[in-house]
Amino acid sequence: MIAEGMGKKLRFVAFTSICQLVFIILFASLGEYSPEADPTKHHRLISTLNLNAYPMFQDVHVMMFIGFGFLMTFLKKYGFGAVGLNFLISAFTIQWATIFHGLFLLEGHDTVELDILTLLNSDFTAAAVLISFGAVLGKFSPLQLLFMALVEVVLKFANEYILLEHFHISDVGGSIIVHIFGAYFGLAVARTAFNPNTTKAAEEKASSMYHSDLFAMIGSIFLWLFWPSFNSAIAVTPDGQLRAIINTYYSLAACTVLTFIVSSLVHKQGKFNMVHIQNAALAGGVAIGTTADLMLNGWGALLIGSLAGIVSTMGFEYLQPLLERIKLHDTCGVHNLHGVPGILAGIIGIIAAGVAKESDYGNSLYIIYPSRAPVEGILKSNLTNEDYLIEPGSGRSASSQALYQLAAIFVTLGIAILGGVVTGLILRLPFWDEPDENDKFDDNGDWILEDDIPDVVIKGKIVALLDSR
Amino acid sequence: MIAEGMGKKLRFVAFTSICQLVFIILFASLGEYSPEADPTKHHRLISTLNLNAYPMFQDVHVMMFIGFGFLMTFLKKYGFGAVGLNFLISAFTIQWATIFHGLFLLEGHDTVELDILTLLNSDFTAAAVLISFGAVLGKFSPLQLLFMALVEVVLKFANEYILLEHFHISDVGGSIIVHIFGAYFGLAVARTAFNPNTTKAAEEKASSMYHSDLFAMIGSIFLWLFWPSFNSAIAVTPDGQLRAIINTYYSLAACTVLTFIVSSLVHKQGKFNMVHIQNAALAGGVAIGTTADLMLNGWGALLIGSLAGIVSTMGFEYLQPLLERIKLHDTCGVHNLHGVPGILAGIIGIIAAGVAKESDYGNSLYIIYPSRAPVEGILKSNLTNEDYLIEPGSGRSASSQALYQLAAIFVTLGIAILGGVVTGLILRLPFWDEPDENDKFDDNGDWILEDDIPDVVIKGKIVALLDSR
Amino acid sequence: MIAEGMGKKLRFVAFTSICQLVFIILFASLGEYSPEADPTKHHRLISTLNLNAYPMFQDVHVMMFIGFGFLMTFLKKYGFGAVGLNFLISAFTIQWATIFHGLFLLEGHDTVELDILTLLNSDFTAAAVLISFGAVLGKFSPLQLLFMALVEVVLKFANEYILLEHFHISDVGGSIIVHIFGAYFGLAVARTAFNPNTTKAAEEKASSMYHSDLFAMIGSIFLWLFWPSFNSAIAVTPDGQLRAIINTYYSLAACTVLTFIVSSLVHKQGKFNMVHIQNAALAGGVAIGTTADLMLNGWGALLIGSLAGIVSTMGFEYLQPLLERIKLHDTCGVHNLHGVPGILAGIIGIIAAGVAKESDYGNSLYIIYPSRAPVEGILKSNLTNEDYLIEPGSGRSASSQALYQLAAIFVTLGIAILGGVVTGLILRLPFWDEPDENDKFDDNGDWILEDDIPDVVIKGKIVALLDSR
Repeated sequence: MIAEGMGKKLRFVAFTSICQLVFIILFASLGEYSPEADPTKHHRLISTLNLNAYPMFQDVHVMMFIGFGFLMTFLKKYGFGAVGLNFLISAFTIQWATIFHGLFLLEGHDTVELDILTLLNSDFTAAAVLISFGAVLGKFSPLQLLFMALVEVVLKFANEYILLEHFHISDVGGSIIVHIFGAYFGLAVARTAFNPNTTKAAEEKASSMYHSDLFAMIGSIFLWLFWPSFNSAIAVTPDGQLRAIINTYYSLAACTVLTFIVSSLVHKQGKFNMVHIQNAALAGGVAIGTTADLMLNGWGALLIGSLAGIVSTMGFEYLQPLLERIKLHDTCGVHNLHGVPGILAGIIGIIAAGVAKESDYGNSLYIIYPSRAPVEGILKSNLTNEDYLIEPGSGRSASSQALYQLAAIFVTLGIAILGGVVTGLILRLPFWDEPDENDKFDDNGDWILEDDIPDVVIKGKIVALLDSR
Repeated sequence: MIAEGMGKKLRFVAFTSICQLVFIILFASLGEYSPEADPTKHHRLISTLNLNAYPMFQDVHVMMFIGFGFLMTFLKKYGFGAVGLNFLISAFTIQWATIFHGLFLLEGHDTVELDILTLLNSDFTAAAVLISFGAVLGKFSPLQLLFMALVEVVLKFANEYILLEHFHISDVGGSIIVHIFGAYFGLAVARTAFNPNTTKAAEEKASSMYHSDLFAMIGSIFLWLFWPSFNSAIAVTPDGQLRAIINTYYSLAACTVLTFIVSSLVHKQGKFNMVHIQNAALAGGVAIGTTADLMLNGWGALLIGSLAGIVSTMGFEYLQPLLERIKLHDTCGVHNLHGVPGILAGIIGIIAAGVAKESDYGNSLYIIYPSRAPVEGILKSNLTNEDYLIEPGSGRSASSQALYQLAAIFVTLGIAILGGVVTGLILRLPFWDEPDENDKFDDNGDWILEDDIPDVVIKGKIVALLDSR
Repeated sequence: MIAEGMGKKLRFVAFTSICQLVFIILFASLGEYSPEADPTKHHRLISTLNLNAYPMFQDVHVMMFIGFGFLMTFLKKYGFGAVGLNFLISAFTIQWATIFHGLFLLEGHDTVELDILTLLNSDFTAAAVLISFGAVLGKFSPLQLLFMALVEVVLKFANEYILLEHFHISDVGGSIIVHIFGAYFGLAVARTAFNPNTTKAAEEKASSMYHSDLFAMIGSIFLWLFWPSFNSAIAVTPDGQLRAIINTYYSLAACTVLTFIVSSLVHKQGKFNMVHIQNAALAGGVAIGTTADLMLNGWGALLIGSLAGIVSTMGFEYLQPLLERIKLHDTCGVHNLHGVPGILAGIIGIIAAGVAKESDYGNSLYIIYPSRAPVEGILKSNLTNEDYLIEPGSGRSASSQALYQLAAIFVTLGIAILGGVVTGLILRLPFWDEPDENDKFDDNGDWILEDDIPDVVIKGKIVALLDSR
């Protein structure tokens, strides 16, 4: 037991130390402050643009570490693993993501620029990894989780590169790039690395208790509250950023109401299910993500949110058990919260692209969909208040843009699932220290616990005791 | 039992679905993006004004969903109801409030403009409803709560319309419009719909346990921290906004210190009472709400906060039991946190209006109190740095403004109490699925609980068991 | 017992009431709104500068009340004391700090200016006091804590005055001014006021349980998330502010990874220790505090964070028990989280000052280190975008600046330790109502508890009961 622990410890320490060392070396070779953060380059007049994004970045930062971290504490005996390993994975991922964000997305630069947008994009990448984490929560060792993160970041940026630099799609809230990718990568890993002992461990421990559900609500509600920041932070026009905030706000409100409605409807006595409330109420943020900055109008946002609430709650109720039958154990139900609503977002994105026209968007159409700009660009002689500076595009039509949006979904699904299967196969190799049945969904495997007899066990014994009297 | 659950379920599902459908239809008929969010209308130069309000809006948003939601989790067996139904009510209310905000307050528009200020005002309206929710917490079914919200929003805006458009009062933090209204509406409902079985259920269950009090502190402290944003978000001048932040910060600090002092004073051994700390420490934010943007100076803010701490803690200690004797069961003590401090705020507002003069405020006096502006307006030939663009008013005197501030309190009390009584009478009708005695203050009525034997019950049994040995 | 409680109550009520009264009188005599908040003085064009700092202020505000408050709830029976007394101390300190901030640091003013920067500095001062609180958590009465705060604020500003106004050191994140000072003042108090009964009480109660550790993670992660705001809020140039954000973000990320690595390494089975994760993961914010706004580059930030994670985790594991042997009981381990990483920050500050040159910083060098500016100042004929307006300095050399940075550490240690020893001696006097052994680390002494038989006690009894069968 101790000898076994020793090997596990050394593998974790060695792997993580080497990664951290590599991060430092790569930062030293490639990283540099953006001009705004460099006193020898920065210009006083532009110097606060980047700082203006800071409050939104902080909202997103809270979503990653408090939001995802506490949402996953719903498991009664895996709270430390949820919030603690979420902390480790995120801190690890944001460093690695910074490097790949620089390499993949800043063509023409041979450096990795450090500014607020870099931090934002690093956190967005952590979101994809944390979604995948949700699918395997409680089933993997820290070592497996970090290896998964390492691979996933590279593939996520490869996919993002294709979608943004080649397909020129619009996906302001990352429902395709982050949610579909993270969900199906994680699900593919979970299915491929499926271990039969999971089912038994899950039956006993993969459920919540009263206070763990309240901790989970902290995470859930912070995710819900700051989702407008997530969906709008990288919008390319100020009016689009405002729309992304407004649309996401209303989509989430409607989604929450529908989640309560459907949750009551599917229970025979009409009771609400905390799993639905904690999760499906967030689906409105995912489902509107691809089109949050578009001219959906309030009613469009409410409709999308309502649809998301229905689809996601139904998914938790009816789809989740079916997936388990095909040996797809999805601990947090990411398929229902990120997968299906992500695809819904992608479909709405196709429709929105197909109907977008200059009379609705003005010139900003060519900023949202840069390929739709005329080949020569729009070289208006005088830039009025309503105009943006437009770069020449390729004169793409609305229906052609819609097809690219469609292709983006399939490419993302392809890369995510294929990448996830390969990663899952690798993670089945024997040296990754997968927890054994007893340690699945149980903090006892990875954490020193003050209290060797947690509440739930005591309770079981007491109930038995009382019954026996 | 199941048949009964079925009827309850269908009524909730039908009512809520119809409301949500109506919201979508009304948004489709009336809603449109504000010019800043509309790419065909917006002007680049003004395009960030609205976005500047976003961080403050997010603070207020956290107050509604985390603040109110967790503050109410203090009940040991009603944590899901507190944070969960708070979530439902808020998500429901912000949609409904958006429509009424547009209809009542944007005269001359035939549309409901969607922008950050709309979101802010929708959240402020949710505050009024959540205050009323505090008075009936644990005693109403979700259906009753949503019906109450539906009525309350309409009356709240009717009252606000009178106060702002006709009386032209100043109430920057909404202590009259939100706190007095929400508190007395809720209390009137609670009294009118009083059910004798509440008393017995409350005795057994309407109390806290150790961890539920810690959850409540999350809500309480987030409310406390972001209250400066609540009181300043819609201030009409930038210097007034700064004062609202500063005054609220110091008022809350002093209020907290006084709450600890009085809490110790009223206990025979000098121990602190968590109920006081969680609630009365917030009264400084309410009591300064009407005048937060005025020239109170630091000492004025400290004095108001100190007074609020004394009055509110005393209220919880001595007034609360008296109210129960007249069959007014106020679960969260909103009378002491929002009612009395709200009236205190209103009185301070009368005094402040009576002494406000141009030598203290410059021209901004006529923005804070628009009716006090001269009939012809101030048409200064050159607008200097210190001047604002002043609209013509009605040349109202300081003492006349003070009388209007006084009238505002009585009108608000009248509409709130009358509206609350009628709403309470309606809610006594038999088809609203009021929880029976066993399900009052108990999540078991509305929620699927993993754990059928919650801690507290076990504890009771064990103590009995141990005693019997 | 009741008579004893009465004396304790009266002393607390009298002391605190008098202090609050003095605060009001001092605010009335000295306080006034800053020009930006005064409608008779403010200029429209500058009126939003102060408001721009507001979101960062709110982040820092959350750190003080949620961050510190919940971080300290890890104690299983002292959660109310942790978050409740943190609330009291902070609300008390920010008022007192406002006055001293005005008196010490605004030379030439005979008033205490109230604006957002005042609020920020008041909160920073609360940080120092809360760090000291961590060293004595569970061992002092509320009266002792407030007296300690009263003295500490004065000494903190005296030290800050010497460091900033005379030594002209750079310490943007306050690692010297706040962290070293707060830690060593608190440790000196804890050692001097050491009571032998602490050891026994600590053995029984100064540990965590499962849910108290989850509450502590709420505090820990909010501290971690908003630390970039803490380290950058008062940076003097916009590019420096950006660097402070970026450097702190990466330092914390690397520190977290190293904390997990070392935590696993020092446990024989490689398990993680929640104490390390909650605390040492934050050391990266402290260690980079003095130099956060400097040209560290990403790799420098990662290196500093990694070092901090190693040093701090090692400190918790190996240094903490040694300190207890010399009767230095440090409840929260502030020596390892704030003391040692603070000194590390100071040393990095010496090195950074020694190598800082104009080719790296441009003219901003003379803003960061004002004494290094030439005696005549830089009166560039035309202020270009890259230039700042430089005040004349004293032409100090880089190595001379480094010596001042070194001196700052020793002066701070001297004032903190000497001040702490004297304060600790005073606090040993018999009239401060130090809790007796039973009430140490136990909310029962200061709080009304709903539940007279807390979980842990029950558990002990049940285990015994089950064992006996």
